Amino acid sequence: MRRASTSAAVEPDLALATSLFEILSDSTRQGRGIVRDSYGTGEQSAHDIMRTAAAAIGLEISVDAIGNLMMTLPGRDRHAARIVIGSHLDSVPQGGNYDGAAGVVAGLAVVSALKVAGVRPSCDISVMAIRAEESAWFDVAYLGSHGALGLLDPACLSVRRSDNGRSLEQTLLERGFDPQPIRERRRLLDPGGIRAYLELHIEQGPTLVARGLPAAVVTGVRGCRRFRHARCVGRYDHSGAVNRPYRSDAVAATVALLHYLESVWVTQEAAGADLAFTAGELYTDLAMHGPSKIAGETRFVLDIRSVDDATMDLLVDEALRAASRIGSDYRVSFDLGDTTDSPAAIMDARLRARLMTLLEQPFEMPSGAGHDATVFARVGIPTAIIFVRNAFGSHNPDEAMSIDDFAVATQTLLRLLMDFPL
Amino acid sequence: MRRASTSAAVEPDLALATSLFEILSDSTRQGRGIVRDSYGTGEQSAHDIMRTAAAAIGLEISVDAIGNLMMTLPGRDRHAARIVIGSHLDSVPQGGNYDGAAGVVAGLAVVSALKVAGVRPSCDISVMAIRAEESAWFDVAYLGSHGALGLLDPACLSVRRSDNGRSLEQTLLERGFDPQPIRERRRLLDPGGIRAYLELHIEQGPTLVARGLPAAVVTGVRGCRRFRHARCVGRYDHSGAVNRPYRSDAVAATVALLHYLESVWVTQEAAGADLAFTAGELYTDLAMHGPSKIAGETRFVLDIRSVDDATMDLLVDEALRAASRIGSDYRVSFDLGDTTDSPAAIMDARLRARLMTLLEQPFEMPSGAGHDATVFARVGIPTAIIFVRNAFGSHNPDEAMSIDDFAVATQTLLRLLMDFPL
Repeated sequence: MRRASTSAAVEPDLALATSLFEILSDSTRQGRGIVRDSYGTGEQSAHDIMRTAAAAIGLEISVDAIGNLMMTLPGRDRHAARIVIGSHLDSVPQGGNYDGAAGVVAGLAVVSALKVAGVRPSCDISVMAIRAEESAWFDVAYLGSHGALGLLDPACLSVRRSDNGRSLEQTLLERGFDPQPIRERRRLLDPGGIRAYLELHIEQGPTLVARGLPAAVVTGVRGCRRFRHARCVGRYDHSGAVNRPYRSDAVAATVALLHYLESVWVTQEAAGADLAFTAGELYTDLAMHGPSKIAGETRFVLDIRSVDDATMDLLVDEALRAASRIGSDYRVSFDLGDTTDSPAAIMDARLRARLMTLLEQPFEMPSGAGHDATVFARVGIPTAIIFVRNAFGSHNPDEAMSIDDFAVATQTLLRLLMDFPL
Repeated sequence: MRRASTSAAVEPDLALATSLFEILSDSTRQGRGIVRDSYGTGEQSAHDIMRTAAAAIGLEISVDAIGNLMMTLPGRDRHAARIVIGSHLDSVPQGGNYDGAAGVVAGLAVVSALKVAGVRPSCDISVMAIRAEESAWFDVAYLGSHGALGLLDPACLSVRRSDNGRSLEQTLLERGFDPQPIRERRRLLDPGGIRAYLELHIEQGPTLVARGLPAAVVTGVRGCRRFRHARCVGRYDHSGAVNRPYRSDAVAATVALLHYLESVWVTQEAAGADLAFTAGELYTDLAMHGPSKIAGETRFVLDIRSVDDATMDLLVDEALRAASRIGSDYRVSFDLGDTTDSPAAIMDARLRARLMTLLEQPFEMPSGAGHDATVFARVGIPTAIIFVRNAFGSHNPDEAMSIDDFAVATQTLLRLLMDFPL
């Protein structure tokens, strides 16, 4: 990238960012929370706001067949592979103002600054406002980015929106979009034409708040192996009259299994592996259990996440072997069922390393939640995510990102762009 | 007890026992199971059957103010403290034929044999058919025996029958009984006038079946300390985005608590203590939990039983201390609530020792379920229980006692009587 004489002084356009966040909030808030429904009125308002800003900046604007919005600062070589700064503009029902939108606003804040400073990049830089990342409305993962890369199963066209029951196909047509590329699994974006995909996103956990850091570089997006319908079957018995050797206690066995898997987690973490293990649902049968009964059944979920597929596979294997061993020890039968899998996505090592040198307080961490970046990384595009500190989690009206932290992360993004080619 | 010349040959009247079990089954079976509702038609049928048999044997018959039936073989000294062979005749809804009734039938089978053999005992021997031991109908523990010993809280008179909603007072009056002694907490039976209380009962657990033994001597009846409404409060969070140090995972903490208490149980048992520990209810909030959420709350029951009050107290203490320690380790808050207590009852050491010498395959074990014997033991009456092997547990239509096992236990009861005074 050729540095203009003023490049050292280029700063993200925070005034633009602040006003965009304000307008987004005003136009898509319903009661306490934000509602930017996927392919609905709320998401469309956000797209209109970004498109208007992009036009004012003087960017090239295009919308693909399924509604993804591309706002491009032209480079010197229009045929060179471009850099995409992407994120989504939809939100969950009663969500917050920053989940997703912060990444698009950051993209506009940096290209606006480059444009004003007269920096002409070596390749196009496109800010991509991606459709329908949240699966709260259509139960399809990463609709917009998967669709752009031709990765959607055409069957998704008949998935119905959770609130109004309209199919995805109907909805696309009503918005003036075209379901045909989805039906044909046709790419709208060529991965070979993308040099890097960069995403700024609020952290959806408490790590940066706890560590007092404004931003972080993401090492990878955790995949998930989930035993969604695990079950332990024992035998209901009198809690006083049946002694330990004769029990088939489903609660005791499930406790032993969960306790063992927690110990594996701790051991793996101590050895440096990235891992999160959760049993978020666990329950005896409300119609059958009782205070003076040994429980004859439990149902539970095992949720295993890591940035490393091998670590998840190890945990799955441990769970299956422990279920068999503990089942036999406790005279019960575990049926963990099948796992639902989503693979991990490792972020590009060179981009990560460069971002680490750009942060004043360098810190790396995995992303527990999925992002559009996962989809780009998995088709082989060098991908990076910058996290911004955010309090109170996401997917709720209380999410809280300060503009100062946003400035740190966005400045880092801008400096990364200024450094291309790495 | 003076031994008649024929005493060595005295055998329980098994023909009578067999026919009583048959008549009981025929007259109180509804569908698959037995229904002898407390103070209802089913229990009354059973009382009528026993009373008729007692009259045929030639026993003295009396019914106390609340319906307990006393069938007495007079002794040589009518003023001497008597021996009571007692058990209940009611059943749970869809119960089995032997829970309770076996003890009354055994009593009649032995006094019938004594009477026929011309044995005149030194003191009266009364077979006591006790009312309303099961709390399934009126939620009052051991109504009949507590009532006979003046131990009922008068407030119980307004407790309603679970099926028809009639109060205990109404029900007693309708049956021609008198609630007044309950209101006055007046004894119907003088503990000082009872030399021993003996009860034969089916085992309600699997121990004798597993060990291949027909009968056992009971060491004591386990009491119970129960945390009925225990709760753990953490915080709901994203299972992928929130790492271990920042979690307040209610399931993980509850698992740690239950796992620790199981280890205490194992240690106590290894040291020879009698103990049963059960968490029969355990559940996350069905409205709030989710497969990709860390659980913010669990509710559970801790049920602690032992024949030794000190062992139960130790476990309660361990539970409270562990909840505090683990709560702090896992950043959650446990509220175990109060315990509901029922004290343990130790059986008389001399009666136990004598019964052990009378069994061909001597075996002692605790009773996990409560019995009327508990009430007699706790007012200081020397008390013993003989268990009979029984398959498939109790409180269900499948309970299965063989007449051969019943014969072994009843013969043991008869030989104990022949030995009095010990």
